[in-house]
Amino acid sequence: MTGTLANRLEDAMTFSPDLRADIDRFWSTIERSAEVGKGRPGGLSRLTLSDDDRTMRDIFVGWCRDAGLQVDIDELGNIFGRRNGTQNDLPPVMIGSHLDTQINGGRFDGIAGVLAGLEVVRVLNDAGHATRRPIVIVDWTNEEGARFSPPMVASGCYVGKYAPAWVKDLVGDDGARFGDELERIGYNGRTNCQAGEIDAYYELHIEQGPILDSERQQVGIVTAGYPSHGMRVQFNGKTAHTGPTPMDLRHNALVAGARWLTAVDDIGWDFAVGDGKATGARLAAWPNKPGILSDSAQAICDVRHPDPATARVMAEKMRRALFESAAKAGCEAVIEDEWFWGGDIFDEEMVAGTREEARRMGFKWRDIQSQAGHDAYFLATHCPTAMIFTPCKGGITHNNEESCEPDDFLAGVNVLLHAVVARADR
Amino acid sequence: MTGTLANRLEDAMTFSPDLRADIDRFWSTIERSAEVGKGRPGGLSRLTLSDDDRTMRDIFVGWCRDAGLQVDIDELGNIFGRRNGTQNDLPPVMIGSHLDTQINGGRFDGIAGVLAGLEVVRVLNDAGHATRRPIVIVDWTNEEGARFSPPMVASGCYVGKYAPAWVKDLVGDDGARFGDELERIGYNGRTNCQAGEIDAYYELHIEQGPILDSERQQVGIVTAGYPSHGMRVQFNGKTAHTGPTPMDLRHNALVAGARWLTAVDDIGWDFAVGDGKATGARLAAWPNKPGILSDSAQAICDVRHPDPATARVMAEKMRRALFESAAKAGCEAVIEDEWFWGGDIFDEEMVAGTREEARRMGFKWRDIQSQAGHDAYFLATHCPTAMIFTPCKGGITHNNEESCEPDDFLAGVNVLLHAVVARADR
Repeated sequence: MTGTLANRLEDAMTFSPDLRADIDRFWSTIERSAEVGKGRPGGLSRLTLSDDDRTMRDIFVGWCRDAGLQVDIDELGNIFGRRNGTQNDLPPVMIGSHLDTQINGGRFDGIAGVLAGLEVVRVLNDAGHATRRPIVIVDWTNEEGARFSPPMVASGCYVGKYAPAWVKDLVGDDGARFGDELERIGYNGRTNCQAGEIDAYYELHIEQGPILDSERQQVGIVTAGYPSHGMRVQFNGKTAHTGPTPMDLRHNALVAGARWLTAVDDIGWDFAVGDGKATGARLAAWPNKPGILSDSAQAICDVRHPDPATARVMAEKMRRALFESAAKAGCEAVIEDEWFWGGDIFDEEMVAGTREEARRMGFKWRDIQSQAGHDAYFLATHCPTAMIFTPCKGGITHNNEESCEPDDFLAGVNVLLHAVVARADR
Repeated sequence: MTGTLANRLEDAMTFSPDLRADIDRFWSTIERSAEVGKGRPGGLSRLTLSDDDRTMRDIFVGWCRDAGLQVDIDELGNIFGRRNGTQNDLPPVMIGSHLDTQINGGRFDGIAGVLAGLEVVRVLNDAGHATRRPIVIVDWTNEEGARFSPPMVASGCYVGKYAPAWVKDLVGDDGARFGDELERIGYNGRTNCQAGEIDAYYELHIEQGPILDSERQQVGIVTAGYPSHGMRVQFNGKTAHTGPTPMDLRHNALVAGARWLTAVDDIGWDFAVGDGKATGARLAAWPNKPGILSDSAQAICDVRHPDPATARVMAEKMRRALFESAAKAGCEAVIEDEWFWGGDIFDEEMVAGTREEARRMGFKWRDIQSQAGHDAYFLATHCPTAMIFTPCKGGITHNNEESCEPDDFLAGVNVLLHAVVARADR
């Protein structure tokens, strides 16, 4: 073995604990992304599988290729950028999030997680460090569910929760079909949407809550997800004239839905002390016009609470309120979908690892629970998973006023970098 | 004067009280109309200014011309078919209703009234009877408001309630503009939408309630309209994530709307004994998606009661519930439109005249109040007006199961015929 080769191998084997991500470089990718699919002032409206989504995907794929990654796109448009390690038969360490946004979304939600993965790869490239295991960065399709409901379908499919054909047949409020739009923007890839063995999955995300910001913490070590129970419901009634139809002969599906949303909001207030939340998020009735009672309404509600037992009680109250609301309006209620997220789903060793990196680098950190749904929740059903939260101003999110500064990512991106490399090199 | 001319003049001056409408002929026009713009089984979905509306208008105009009527179309697409009398400088007697339907509408609502007017003209033609005053039959554009809200805009404009330009700028849920659609179907006429002097306005309509059917009455003499108060409201909130946003920091416009509809429905039940009604008819929120709180919602509610003082109390409760609902959801409420219909708006002499014709011809009749809004309500602000109700099965309406038999129209159409001729000949 020549000295040069030995040096090269040594470089490949060690990764200096003093190396840091280039936050300016990371920020420049955030700013480039913020130019694609602008929404209300300062925000983004980059709905999944739209023209703007395609433009952003093209940019991201270009960045991946420039970084020497091997790009694969699966049948649901998930984009994987793979950086080989020294032992490529080992399962990879994965870093992912999403580049799509809500219709009135911000510039950081999801996006920061994908681009933090890109920054990790770029730092490794600059350092000339080959990790032992491969690293794969991912952009998951349709995390938001803002165009095609439910959310997180593509990561869900990846871990076997949904069937690809079912996902492709989803139809948005705009009448477009998921599969058709995927093909239209040219991101219907050839590989199956099916996870192989994965060593670990990391996701960095803005907190989407006010805790880190209000406590001036630099990074949140996510220990669990708020247990969250949700339902999508169809109410069936009967159209009739709004004028002469007596109250006791009415079957107004819109009123059934309104009553349910009201009852669920009441549940939220009843459990607000203790940090419970309940949301009436959607109510879409038909014909939904003056002069006629609606015979159909679709509604989506959910409840969340940090304590699993309390969350279960809230969920049961939501369920009973459903049938009570339907009965009061003389309508039928059909539960079309139910879901549960959260709980102690994250990998203790990985969580401890991220915490240790935050401590080692001297960042102000705290343990925190995640309150929103994330692709990481699905990945956690398949492989060891951890999340890292970064602060956002006032916790404002899903709003064009979502706001972060470059410094807000200093701790999170570096914790991600060192946690990933440690994991990939072990 | 030759004997022949004298005979002809005599014919023109008298109209036998024994003449009757040809209900089979009338029914054949109902059946022809029922082929245009079919909806759910048995029903119609003939939205105003749609292609189907154009087809039906073309048929109606053809029937008018075949009956020798002079057809005029005004700038809002109202179709007038005029049959001259012997003194054409006198204000006409008008018979009108509408040929458009709800999105899940029936085959009789409105349509029967327009085609009853046509039948009156046909009987007069067969009898060779020239009335003293001209008779004008009318199809009013967009009575239903099912595509362009509010309803009855074209009759409202005709009597000076709305400006033509305002009506033309109405935009439907499908994004179409009233004026553009009117032009597209070729019914943007040249005459101003502005009423001249009118001697009397008659409107025959199916009851849209169960009273005549359940009592086996053949015809309803409409004495008044239920006082009806309505509001269109805009709720303004703020988008945010449904997960982490604490209950006390939420401004969910969808929940504000749901609370208001629920409260209004409660008002309806509180006044149901006494025949009060209250309706949450529309709630359209944005973005109205899982994962995000809505920052905008439009809602439409109304209350109706036969007693004007009680209707006022219900209206005030509806108004207070509005601000209470908005406050509970941390939102702003803006009243965009308010309306009042009904009361003692019909002409006593005309009402007595229709009652007398029903009695004379031996039909089973009763006095009845109208509970729905009708073009006649606007006409009543401009000229003496009366309405005639015909039975419909179970009072089912604004539904494809709306159902009538030819016999249900025997009394109504003949009362209309003789009341109109008596009025026009006086």
